[in-house]
Amino acid sequence: MIRYPMLTRRLFSAAVLAGATVSARAQTGSDPLPSWKDRAAKDAILKFVRDTTDQSSPNFVPPAERIAEFDQDGTLWVEHPLYTQVVFCLDHVPALVKEKPELGQREPFKAVLSGSRDAIAHLSMREIFEIVLATQSGMTVEAFQDEVGKWLATAKHPRWNRAYTDLAYQPMLEVLQHFRANGYRTFIATGGSAGFVREYADKVYGIPPEQVCGTEQAFRYGYDKDHRPILTREPRLILNNLGAGKLENFWLLYGRRPYAAFGNSSSDDQQMLEYVKAGSGLRLSAVVLHDDAEREYAYGPAQGLPDTTVGTFGQAMYDVAMKQGWVIISMKNDWTRLFPFDA
Amino acid sequence: MIRYPMLTRRLFSAAVLAGATVSARAQTGSDPLPSWKDRAAKDAILKFVRDTTDQSSPNFVPPAERIAEFDQDGTLWVEHPLYTQVVFCLDHVPALVKEKPELGQREPFKAVLSGSRDAIAHLSMREIFEIVLATQSGMTVEAFQDEVGKWLATAKHPRWNRAYTDLAYQPMLEVLQHFRANGYRTFIATGGSAGFVREYADKVYGIPPEQVCGTEQAFRYGYDKDHRPILTREPRLILNNLGAGKLENFWLLYGRRPYAAFGNSSSDDQQMLEYVKAGSGLRLSAVVLHDDAEREYAYGPAQGLPDTTVGTFGQAMYDVAMKQGWVIISMKNDWTRLFPFDA
Repeated sequence: MIRYPMLTRRLFSAAVLAGATVSARAQTGSDPLPSWKDRAAKDAILKFVRDTTDQSSPNFVPPAERIAEFDQDGTLWVEHPLYTQVVFCLDHVPALVKEKPELGQREPFKAVLSGSRDAIAHLSMREIFEIVLATQSGMTVEAFQDEVGKWLATAKHPRWNRAYTDLAYQPMLEVLQHFRANGYRTFIATGGSAGFVREYADKVYGIPPEQVCGTEQAFRYGYDKDHRPILTREPRLILNNLGAGKLENFWLLYGRRPYAAFGNSSSDDQQMLEYVKAGSGLRLSAVVLHDDAEREYAYGPAQGLPDTTVGTFGQAMYDVAMKQGWVIISMKNDWTRLFPFDA
Repeated sequence: MIRYPMLTRRLFSAAVLAGATVSARAQTGSDPLPSWKDRAAKDAILKFVRDTTDQSSPNFVPPAERIAEFDQDGTLWVEHPLYTQVVFCLDHVPALVKEKPELGQREPFKAVLSGSRDAIAHLSMREIFEIVLATQSGMTVEAFQDEVGKWLATAKHPRWNRAYTDLAYQPMLEVLQHFRANGYRTFIATGGSAGFVREYADKVYGIPPEQVCGTEQAFRYGYDKDHRPILTREPRLILNNLGAGKLENFWLLYGRRPYAAFGNSSSDDQQMLEYVKAGSGLRLSAVVLHDDAEREYAYGPAQGLPDTTVGTFGQAMYDVAMKQGWVIISMKNDWTRLFPFDA
């Protein structure tokens, strides 16, 4: 663990001046980012928080404006080999087909039922949306919440054989906490379904459901057989957070440009990162580079994948990031510890 | 001013037990709702907050779940003779027609330009939406914010000759504060445009922009002539908060059923009020009855308006409210003071 006594002391003073809630960790003067190596990325994050919460700084941001946005998959937790929510939906295809046997005769459901890893890996985004809408519709919002909760309690990631909710990155949990300890409100903006992520965001990330902006379906108000009012999930997409949609929908939900944004994907984070960085005053745009094949996965610029590969951080975004001064976070070189369960 | 020493003391204890932030007012033991008469409505609100924040109560609600929803027009501030945001849009029609002269030749813009009060009063909801979309589109989100700010600083309500933002109901401001002092997060769900209400919600109600759920248009990501990324307001409705839409979109944005809801309109609040009241545990649904022709306006059950009149609280909802045990708030009989500027 690396310590920065000077820096932490200044940080603590800034937080007190700003009237922010100061965590026990900050109060003891210890390092707020203990799982980060003493390199440029850590320095840049600490400096940004310090500068924007120090009332004597020209970059001071009033508490009401302190909003930080975080992508989830690949930024806050593992996204390989499949997005967790996609695994949830795939796992629910057999029950769906039992209920509606005609679906089993056609794609993409047939491919899912075949269990072929290769076929599943090659599902298009359109096909994935079809599966998502089919498996996450027709039930009340409470029935869906129960189902997500049950699945999360039992499903395990194939590589680590652990619950998916164990696979949040410890260094990013520290960043979330550090922002909040300095008066920032932290938000998730995800391509995944808001209703899925909201079921664990508070427990895993300390982010309440109302601060999760996701892709989402329509809801329909109606009555059950006992004439009790209910809300039902409908198979109709209202918010699509892919591409520029993530940024557009973030404004739709919250009406603010964040001061800081963390992402990892060329396809779905680049617009948000560019927009945040282009705001007035000091802004932070940061990208997680998956370059750690040993402890996690390696994909992105170093691996020569095309920029259009969903969820990857391609060379073109890397070039923009370098040009605009985004913070590049190397999993391999910046993080001493990956998961909370790591020693 | 009426005081409840016993009740306030119990309330204070409950708040401390719950670990909630306690306002200076609560700490001094004074009445948290000083503009309310000692009648059933006040008692019911105080009892609800006390019961749901007292850890020894079977109706205790954990802090994370404490969400209270408030309609705006007619519930938090004056909605007659026209919704404030509609006045904003009507005031912008001349500039719009100057820019696009062809609009001046056709309805509903022709009616607006005529200045006829009668014609304007008879605009249909579809025509109002057309005017809203036409006047609130094509500019960047920042240009729109500036325009709203400028208008609010100068526009005056015709009856009181005061800024619209002065016309929030003092008793409801006390309710908002009382809920927040007891660990509730307060949200606005409005038929008005989210982007309009967000410009003053924090200043007027203490509600941050991200806790305002409104009707809203689409946003489009793009670049300006200097290749700086921008978000532009588009003339396409994404969220329509009228009718059941208010409840459906509240779930879409926040993924929670509120524990308390305040409204006043048969057309746009009834679904939310029914849904909230039908939740598990103790829930509060409350309606503001506009029965004070002298100090404000009188409309609703006592005035014999049809239930379908937009924005009114009709007889049918009144009957449901009585049957389901909603709290009925009579402006005339429950409120000692109407506006913050009243003596």
